[in-house]
Amino acid sequence: MKTVLITGGAGFIGSHLADELLARNYKVVVLDDLSLGRQENISHLDNSPNFKFIKGDILDDQTLNKVFDENDFDMVFHLAANSDIARSFANPAIDLNLTFMTTFKVLMAMKARNVKKIMFASTSAIYGQTGGAEVKENYGPLFPASHYGAGKLSSEAFIASFVENYGFQAWITRFPNVCGERTTHGILHDFIKKLHKNPDELEVLGDGKQAKPYLYVKDLVEAILFVCDNAKDKINYFNLGVEGQTNVTTIANMVIKAMKLNARIKYTGGDRGWIGDVPKFAYNLDKIHQLGWKSSRTSDEAVETAINAILKEQSCN
Amino acid sequence: MKTVLITGGAGFIGSHLADELLARNYKVVVLDDLSLGRQENISHLDNSPNFKFIKGDILDDQTLNKVFDENDFDMVFHLAANSDIARSFANPAIDLNLTFMTTFKVLMAMKARNVKKIMFASTSAIYGQTGGAEVKENYGPLFPASHYGAGKLSSEAFIASFVENYGFQAWITRFPNVCGERTTHGILHDFIKKLHKNPDELEVLGDGKQAKPYLYVKDLVEAILFVCDNAKDKINYFNLGVEGQTNVTTIANMVIKAMKLNARIKYTGGDRGWIGDVPKFAYNLDKIHQLGWKSSRTSDEAVETAINAILKEQSCN
Repeated sequence: MKTVLITGGAGFIGSHLADELLARNYKVVVLDDLSLGRQENISHLDNSPNFKFIKGDILDDQTLNKVFDENDFDMVFHLAANSDIARSFANPAIDLNLTFMTTFKVLMAMKARNVKKIMFASTSAIYGQTGGAEVKENYGPLFPASHYGAGKLSSEAFIASFVENYGFQAWITRFPNVCGERTTHGILHDFIKKLHKNPDELEVLGDGKQAKPYLYVKDLVEAILFVCDNAKDKINYFNLGVEGQTNVTTIANMVIKAMKLNARIKYTGGDRGWIGDVPKFAYNLDKIHQLGWKSSRTSDEAVETAINAILKEQSCN
Repeated sequence: MKTVLITGGAGFIGSHLADELLARNYKVVVLDDLSLGRQENISHLDNSPNFKFIKGDILDDQTLNKVFDENDFDMVFHLAANSDIARSFANPAIDLNLTFMTTFKVLMAMKARNVKKIMFASTSAIYGQTGGAEVKENYGPLFPASHYGAGKLSSEAFIASFVENYGFQAWITRFPNVCGERTTHGILHDFIKKLHKNPDELEVLGDGKQAKPYLYVKDLVEAILFVCDNAKDKINYFNLGVEGQTNVTTIANMVIKAMKLNARIKYTGGDRGWIGDVPKFAYNLDKIHQLGWKSSRTSDEAVETAINAILKEQSCN
């Protein structure tokens, strides 16, 4: 039985990954400081004999060393990061520390114990402003628009140098926008919250035409593990995503419909939601398709599934 | 009169840049901790009324704040970094701190005082193993082979997010191998040192076929300032270099000849000098040529000029 570490494993995506790895008979250790992750995302796993949760901060050397000393990891799934892109506008150190330094510390801990396999949760945000072009994995130049994207690109950079210098093997999976149950923020939550406040009108930042591909979280987890199982290079790097994209107006209408309202949409204008956001973006998915994985849901279906899952979650709390 | 800060200004390239900026009537403040830079590189500037040297560490917040508080900078030339790629193999934190964190700290200090123009000394090392392809500025993927390259790419990443978020303007110039007087290490020094020890035989790591473009330091400084004067985008990024490249065997023969020796060359074999080194590399220079700058020396001429300058320097000490 293989033992894996999931950093950020109490977070939205990390907790779904933990579910699936346990289902596949891995021993799973989750390290999470619960600053962004939530105990309730993993509390259903408390009684699993193959699951262990450690509450702690990666940036605290003592904690990290203890986790690595007490477990014999075959592989690390490194997902811990700041997950709220907009908030670091006021303080870039948030992404410096939570998005990048966490990666560097994990790499150093792995190096010290000869743990050499890492799956890294990267992001479309590393590509920056691409002018709407369909972006392949070898797109350049890489000038991220957000500190979050900068922290993720910096992480990829050092993962690459650890691969080259110490014989690490890496699976870098670049996530699109991901949606589903256990999220705590993002556009779906914003719209639901706004509509609870004012069921008659929904204010939308920008012109509603910003479009992004959305992947349902369980499909994302399936894709991550498919890549780890099937890609065999030293550095394996893949855009993960769905074909097509969903624009903000479509999302707004879906939320209004799912909540059984008749709200009108009011646009604030302009082509961007917030500074650092990327207005339009499309992944090229040839590489992951050629490896043999394709999402069973479209972007619109993913968003619809997620809206219903979130509304159901909220009604159960 | 404009005031500029040169971080790492007592280093090899920084000190030549200081010379040229003073010649162009700038007020120049050099910040350098002299860990890699050398007082003697700038001691000839001590009596210049427009020159100020501050010995201090960028990573020390108090020092950095004082430098920014006591001067009103129009622009920062950020060159401070680890300059010895091979030594961080044993400790990646060297490049984390000296190559990347210095950049992040400088960006934060600039942001706090509304200094918005930065020239960043980047490097061909961000491109990693390119398999000998001629590399354009938009080459991808970016997987640096060395921690030094990783630190520089991370720096570019955050420079980009500061440009996008805070209206910075950046000139990113990616250096090739640079040679000339005031160097303290590198292949020319290695060969000269080896030949002083054993004038009959020169041991060369690898097979001698590793080839890189070498730019003479005064040509590099000219190119940097040309880019800053003539490129007007938010992020301006350019490969700097010369056409052609010089292989290790050619360098070995030039050093032997300049030292008036008849040493034979002994190769250790294999296609790389050290782990993390990139065996063969060629820049595409169309972008800088189209902007209007071209090196007056070839790579071979640059190496020859540098060998003679270094031997002359040594004989004067």
